[in-house]
Amino acid sequence: MVIEVAEYQERMKKTKERMATKGIEVLLVTDPANMNYLTGYDGWSFYVDQILAIFDDEEQPIWIGRTADANGAKVTTWLYHENIIPYPDTYVQSDIRHPMDFVAEILTQIGQDKRKIGVEMDNYYFSAKCFQQLVKGLPNATFIDATLLVNWVRLIKSPKEIELIQRAAVIAKHSMLEGIEMVDEGVRGCDVAAKISYTQLSGTSQYGGDYPAIVPLLPAGERTSTPHLTWTDEPYRKGENVILELAGCYKRYHAPIARTVQIGQPTANMKNLSNIVIEGLNACLNFIKPGVTCEEVEAIWRQTVEKYGVTKEFRLGYSMGLNYPPDWGEHTASIRKGDKTILLPNMTFHLIPAIWSEGDSFEISESFRVTPTGCEPLVDLPRELVIKDGMTFEKLNPVI
Amino acid sequence: MVIEVAEYQERMKKTKERMATKGIEVLLVTDPANMNYLTGYDGWSFYVDQILAIFDDEEQPIWIGRTADANGAKVTTWLYHENIIPYPDTYVQSDIRHPMDFVAEILTQIGQDKRKIGVEMDNYYFSAKCFQQLVKGLPNATFIDATLLVNWVRLIKSPKEIELIQRAAVIAKHSMLEGIEMVDEGVRGCDVAAKISYTQLSGTSQYGGDYPAIVPLLPAGERTSTPHLTWTDEPYRKGENVILELAGCYKRYHAPIARTVQIGQPTANMKNLSNIVIEGLNACLNFIKPGVTCEEVEAIWRQTVEKYGVTKEFRLGYSMGLNYPPDWGEHTASIRKGDKTILLPNMTFHLIPAIWSEGDSFEISESFRVTPTGCEPLVDLPRELVIKDGMTFEKLNPVI
Repeated sequence: MVIEVAEYQERMKKTKERMATKGIEVLLVTDPANMNYLTGYDGWSFYVDQILAIFDDEEQPIWIGRTADANGAKVTTWLYHENIIPYPDTYVQSDIRHPMDFVAEILTQIGQDKRKIGVEMDNYYFSAKCFQQLVKGLPNATFIDATLLVNWVRLIKSPKEIELIQRAAVIAKHSMLEGIEMVDEGVRGCDVAAKISYTQLSGTSQYGGDYPAIVPLLPAGERTSTPHLTWTDEPYRKGENVILELAGCYKRYHAPIARTVQIGQPTANMKNLSNIVIEGLNACLNFIKPGVTCEEVEAIWRQTVEKYGVTKEFRLGYSMGLNYPPDWGEHTASIRKGDKTILLPNMTFHLIPAIWSEGDSFEISESFRVTPTGCEPLVDLPRELVIKDGMTFEKLNPVI
Repeated sequence: MVIEVAEYQERMKKTKERMATKGIEVLLVTDPANMNYLTGYDGWSFYVDQILAIFDDEEQPIWIGRTADANGAKVTTWLYHENIIPYPDTYVQSDIRHPMDFVAEILTQIGQDKRKIGVEMDNYYFSAKCFQQLVKGLPNATFIDATLLVNWVRLIKSPKEIELIQRAAVIAKHSMLEGIEMVDEGVRGCDVAAKISYTQLSGTSQYGGDYPAIVPLLPAGERTSTPHLTWTDEPYRKGENVILELAGCYKRYHAPIARTVQIGQPTANMKNLSNIVIEGLNACLNFIKPGVTCEEVEAIWRQTVEKYGVTKEFRLGYSMGLNYPPDWGEHTASIRKGDKTILLPNMTFHLIPAIWSEGDSFEISESFRVTPTGCEPLVDLPRELVIKDGMTFEKLNPVI
């Protein structure tokens, strides 16, 4: 395991402290990122129900999942094998049995059925039906909403986590450079996505890459009016802009980054727009240091760009790190109006002040970590609108 | 759009018929595959809440999603633009506003708040909290469980869908061949995953690939004791077996396939195991035709392999087609004991009779479509344990 057992135990301790403040005695964790964070569990098995049950009075949690995946839990976690409890395959996608019925039975068998049970009501992979079956199967329990409880524990990264994110950032840099190099008139978006994905997964000669929680987002032309379209097999045309948003991923830790490429010379408006957005981004990065709040960072952005008549109604950024599909964001602190989270050293964010419109669209981002005195961008790439106009694009750095 | 509007309307009609039989007047669809199936909507935006609302007395559904994604709905769906309703970014991952509050308000404004409302209680991306907020926001509505309602409409594929799946199958074949060619002693799993992913996304020279709903699953060595581990950056060692499970994907339609590669000569047990599993798989494929049930197919498997003392407690296969992460399976018909679904022409399944164990593990699969007289494997690859033992592996077919 890449994380030491002592670090998992420390994470458990912090989780239990948060449980205590909310009066939670048993916490049922279904978010795969939170399961991984607390145990190391890593498999593409979150498409079936699985949980980690944490007890206020037990050192180790128990893992409950599909029989076929129990060996995966043995291979990837620090848990005692007797704490890995498989449910039979007859519970999988059945209309007569539900995995949460099994969970309720286990909790009852071990005398945990009359307790205050926290559930991740609004994390991924905890369906409305999951909750309904738990309530039915545990009539004597009291349920407490524990949405994002573990996510908030994840906010400040350990030195080891920073190291993993820095490795992800190297992969992000190379993936972006490969993508930028390839984007040009006549090139198909699918081939650019393929090259990016190759680089993301292959990683470097020293260490391999992991799959990012989001595939490369590559809108081009009119599709840049919206941020979450992927790619097509249409060749790019001269005059189009192409937005590349991607992450490097290492051991499930992410470093996202976005850049915009203009095929052919940009319009005056596009040049102007990119200059304004970059000025706003730089102003934020210069401002960020421990002690300032998320909403203060957003205010700096707004002050900087409003004088040019630019407004952005979207969230400017978010905390990120360990994750699984469908999102690399942590859903805790957001850089936006009203978010009073105070930035502290070793928080890591993706700051993405994009402007999408039905006219010109420009997106540029930085992932950064808060340092003791300021912040440090994680991915080493120039902050500019990339122009591809017939000339060979120079690789900014040799690929390692 | 790749699907014609008339086909979307036909899908809507079938959906409304199912709604009627369940007494549902308004159906709220949150599963991204179901949203795509009914409208064409395609974006990596399912990490925030979004829904499609279908009314028994309206021709067109309405799409409700994040403001930034509304243009994506305009670009990718057949809906009137006035039926695309964006919610402000302040609803995104907020602890004071929930997107389902907005949905409840819209339904109230258009007079749909006192109706019988179907919700996908156990599909992906409909959290326990989503349901709670809807119930709170629509106190005069009656809620009905509509889990898998649209999934069941998807069971039989149209000729156009078969064509898309066949294109996915070509990509699957090439991705598997590239993966198999690369697996060998000293090669890192991450590099094999990278090559597979490259081939999946790039597709063919005629058409590009889409991202599959599951990343390549590549357990090796002891990790083959469980099916859902991905890859590591450790080099493969002589004597290890490597399981490759992957899909080709085209316009969100999948063709999954699995093969096992032995590095070095297989043990006698491994050879034996692979022969038995292949005999069982062939027996199933020979048996399948319209009119037989899923559980009868499973019984054929069991009869074939039990005489060798092999048992498999897992589901043998499942309906598949259009999908998004985290699963390419449709969660409807399963090839297992107790499933009485009758096979009909143009149903498409992934049949995957793998044996995972802490000793030898062997996995091989076929995706097939049911034809008028039998079944047709979709991915054209030999059914065998692939042995890599120092010799150059011959490409079975040139890559197109």
